Amino acid sequence: MAVLMKGSEVAKAMKERMVNEVERLGQKGIVPCLAIIRVGARPDDLSYERSAIKKCEGLGIKCRVFEYPEDIAQQDLMEEIRKVNDDSQIHGILLFRPLPGHIDEKAVRCVVSPGKDVDCLNPVNLAKVFEGDETGFAPCTPEAVVEILDHYGINPEGKRVTIIGRSLVVGKPLAMLLIRRNATVTVCHTRTKNLKETCRQAEILIAAAGRARMVNEEYVSEGQVVVDVGINVDQDGQLCGDVDFEKVEPIVAYITPVPGGVGTVTTSVLANHVIRAAGNDT
Amino acid sequence: MAVLMKGSEVAKAMKERMVNEVERLGQKGIVPCLAIIRVGARPDDLSYERSAIKKCEGLGIKCRVFEYPEDIAQQDLMEEIRKVNDDSQIHGILLFRPLPGHIDEKAVRCVVSPGKDVDCLNPVNLAKVFEGDETGFAPCTPEAVVEILDHYGINPEGKRVTIIGRSLVVGKPLAMLLIRRNATVTVCHTRTKNLKETCRQAEILIAAAGRARMVNEEYVSEGQVVVDVGINVDQDGQLCGDVDFEKVEPIVAYITPVPGGVGTVTTSVLANHVIRAAGNDT
Repeated sequence: MAVLMKGSEVAKAMKERMVNEVERLGQKGIVPCLAIIRVGARPDDLSYERSAIKKCEGLGIKCRVFEYPEDIAQQDLMEEIRKVNDDSQIHGILLFRPLPGHIDEKAVRCVVSPGKDVDCLNPVNLAKVFEGDETGFAPCTPEAVVEILDHYGINPEGKRVTIIGRSLVVGKPLAMLLIRRNATVTVCHTRTKNLKETCRQAEILIAAAGRARMVNEEYVSEGQVVVDVGINVDQDGQLCGDVDFEKVEPIVAYITPVPGGVGTVTTSVLANHVIRAAGNDT
Repeated sequence: MAVLMKGSEVAKAMKERMVNEVERLGQKGIVPCLAIIRVGARPDDLSYERSAIKKCEGLGIKCRVFEYPEDIAQQDLMEEIRKVNDDSQIHGILLFRPLPGHIDEKAVRCVVSPGKDVDCLNPVNLAKVFEGDETGFAPCTPEAVVEILDHYGINPEGKRVTIIGRSLVVGKPLAMLLIRRNATVTVCHTRTKNLKETCRQAEILIAAAGRARMVNEEYVSEGQVVVDVGINVDQDGQLCGDVDFEKVEPIVAYITPVPGGVGTVTTSVLANHVIRAAGNDT
């Protein structure tokens, strides 16, 4: 039976560290503050917003929500972001994407001040992830994967890691974070031949494909560490990961559940970035 | 016996395309122009400068060399780069690195205008490589590798590619360029265990480790495509690649020589970037 790598355990350990840091900042008169910028009101965004606020406020981080109508003009949105950039009481900015179709997302991303860009939208932070420069902010989800591995004492150094998925929010930045930690990283995707074999050969397998339960018993091997980044809804309307947990869990050594795995840690990473941004200000 | 992938053949084919493009620009009154910015006079830089000038001038691209003393102040260097940015007659900028130790290289890199940054120094262009956005300029050497594969009809799509080396000038950007082309990419480095085996399993093996002749017959297998990015000088003062050509060539299907391989194509990619930058101006 595999060790269940629970997001809640990781979040708890992170919380202890973060509470201390928020207290330290408080002694200097700083209250870390996250601005959540949302255009429209998609249910997914609202759901993430609620959990981000809950996580942040539980740590003593203030949250301010800036909501704009879906038909906001690009110039107006950019102007609003600039105001948030200039507000010295705000340390971090979370901007929900995708933005409505009439908005040039790339132009907007560049406006977010790199020092407040706690979810890695600005190319300056993306380039830092690529360079292995840890002074920036990596995207929260891939960093959550690294936090989970750390917490469970799994050192990626020298290990064969296979990542299924090459997105800019998970697969590619995670590859960079793990190369930085001296893993040997293989990035797979829909065009990969022999995907099952490549997955079986890994010591650490990370599923970030966005396909419900695609990773079954044919993709894994004994002793593996399996991290499931997927959040999907199956035909029965049930939340599930990219990994077929029932079939994979009996074979591997470590596995994250969905829900209760990576997703649970993502908001902790976000909160940690806000605290770090607030600390950089001092 | 392996097919020898000659840089000169690739450069020749690229030249035909580029000459047409320079002619087309000439009809609009545009003469592509590269600014070469050099601090000090390292022999390596001078050697690359000579071949870049030769390549560019052979294509009708103007070159202007801006040479500064090694003790130039950072602010002065940045001011000089800004002048080049503002000069509408200059389309591309090549800045030799490493810069002297007293200069904050990162700050200087950010000053190079992204639209003229033909060697991918600015984080904006680095981030584009990471994102798979081809509107920017990738670093010249990894793009030269892709040009060679293209020229010899080797489509990386779906293929297992192993890259030895994770530098920001070759290994990591090359991984991104090849993922963009649907290859399954594994990035190896000094901490990789089972390096030989990982290399043997690849269909395309790219050596960018910077270690003279490290890739010998134990790293390769029949039918492989081997691209050697290394340029080293061995104990006898002889130029050699990362691949032990004599031992590897009889086994594999395709191989690049050193010298006369990737290095020969790099200046062609640089010239092509200058032409593209000049075209973007119209």
